[in-house]
Amino acid sequence: MSVELVSVGNELLIGKTVNTNANWLAKRITTLGLKVTRITTVGDDVDEISKIIKECLSRRPKFIIVTGGLGPTFDDKTLEGIAKALNMELKVNDEALRMIEEKYKRYVKEGRIESFELTPYRVKMATLPEGGTPIPNPVGTAPGVRIKSGETEIIALPGVPEEMKAIFDEHIAPLVRKASKNAVFYEVSLLCIGIVESDLAPLIDKVMHDNPYVYVKSHPKAAEAIPKIEIHLSTTSDDVEKAKARISSTIMQLTELIEKKGGNVRPIKT
Amino acid sequence: MSVELVSVGNELLIGKTVNTNANWLAKRITTLGLKVTRITTVGDDVDEISKIIKECLSRRPKFIIVTGGLGPTFDDKTLEGIAKALNMELKVNDEALRMIEEKYKRYVKEGRIESFELTPYRVKMATLPEGGTPIPNPVGTAPGVRIKSGETEIIALPGVPEEMKAIFDEHIAPLVRKASKNAVFYEVSLLCIGIVESDLAPLIDKVMHDNPYVYVKSHPKAAEAIPKIEIHLSTTSDDVEKAKARISSTIMQLTELIEKKGGNVRPIKT
Repeated sequence: MSVELVSVGNELLIGKTVNTNANWLAKRITTLGLKVTRITTVGDDVDEISKIIKECLSRRPKFIIVTGGLGPTFDDKTLEGIAKALNMELKVNDEALRMIEEKYKRYVKEGRIESFELTPYRVKMATLPEGGTPIPNPVGTAPGVRIKSGETEIIALPGVPEEMKAIFDEHIAPLVRKASKNAVFYEVSLLCIGIVESDLAPLIDKVMHDNPYVYVKSHPKAAEAIPKIEIHLSTTSDDVEKAKARISSTIMQLTELIEKKGGNVRPIKT
Repeated sequence: MSVELVSVGNELLIGKTVNTNANWLAKRITTLGLKVTRITTVGDDVDEISKIIKECLSRRPKFIIVTGGLGPTFDDKTLEGIAKALNMELKVNDEALRMIEEKYKRYVKEGRIESFELTPYRVKMATLPEGGTPIPNPVGTAPGVRIKSGETEIIALPGVPEEMKAIFDEHIAPLVRKASKNAVFYEVSLLCIGIVESDLAPLIDKVMHDNPYVYVKSHPKAAEAIPKIEIHLSTTSDDVEKAKARISSTIMQLTELIEKKGGNVRPIKT
């Protein structure tokens, strides 16, 4: 069961902003037991958003999680793009409008703004593809949105990290955990010192052959006089003890092979 | 003239690694005057790599820059994926093999390894799609690779950031600059304090209408008692003075509009 992430925002394409949202979501979803198969960044453009949503849907993931483009400005085009991809009309959603009104009423109470009207810019945040359901935003103004298309659920979240994380943890994480049937992802990192990656490669081949459920990947560190390579071991299982046992026996075998080659290994925190 | 970035690596899909390579490349390419239109991350899988290369080619960008998956281990599959997408054979490239041999000879001289053989794992790094040209790697072992397909140039770079950056700056940046005909990208960030984004939105609409070559995007900061919004202004031009003048007059108009609404504005470094 796979998940695709779509990040919307010109700031990502011009290199102004590092895509920490995709990283955070990928880690969270992996930990919750599902597999992220692709991450795509597109600009603030209705056609680009519509195209990537259609492409994702053609690969039939369980979830498509879109971040960014839900706000009040002209370049917040995610919902228009999704509506276009799904051939749906955009309509003001009463529940979303109520959520937004409540927010601005609170802002007035808190003295952040003097008064408010439901300007077109504010109504825009409540204008969803028909069939979409708003998700409350505990931190900011624009609600998230859920829309089913076939077996896939499209989830649109705001791009502001605090808002995205709050909505995900409160409303989306339980859906992901349910879909993964509580699978466990378990990972350990080792630091291998003293042998180069091309000498480590056959040892990794050997332990992966002998431990078919464990994925082992080497990450060479920056060039140094003494070669240092991070080795990352991971597995997904329905049982945490099974996962730990698999990783432990893989580490034992790998450590022995590396020491025979004159290198040494120590655990590291990542 | 557009550029697509493709990042290859399971570590990105499990959220172990933040995709700083794509961010660095996007910033560099934007500064050099070309437009990055899409960034895609896929896993260490020949079919996934082959599919994304074909998809990128169908959109006919000037460059496809792929990072990751060029090393000696089993999961370094980028060249195999590109060969599959282009329907090309993989062949040992003599020049690439010579580059790799020289590296290992130097490692022996420097005492990093005692001796070396051209094992299959090392020859793998010199095994390119036919028609590919190796690019020297001044930092690490695996060469980069250039391959033409129609009007598009595919450039494969290692995933280790220091290696990727060194090869890009030395060998790829001049190609990008030439393709952009020395276009200039100019950007300024302002901090807008005291008005909420939905009140800023119509002001941005107005200045973008009056300054058609300038792109203005608002980035709300985390929820605070007093709303703070970063406003990013950017333009691309063939002349730096023209670019600066455009941005300056946009800032003047925007500042006036924001102050009328009771907010204020100051320049910030990003």
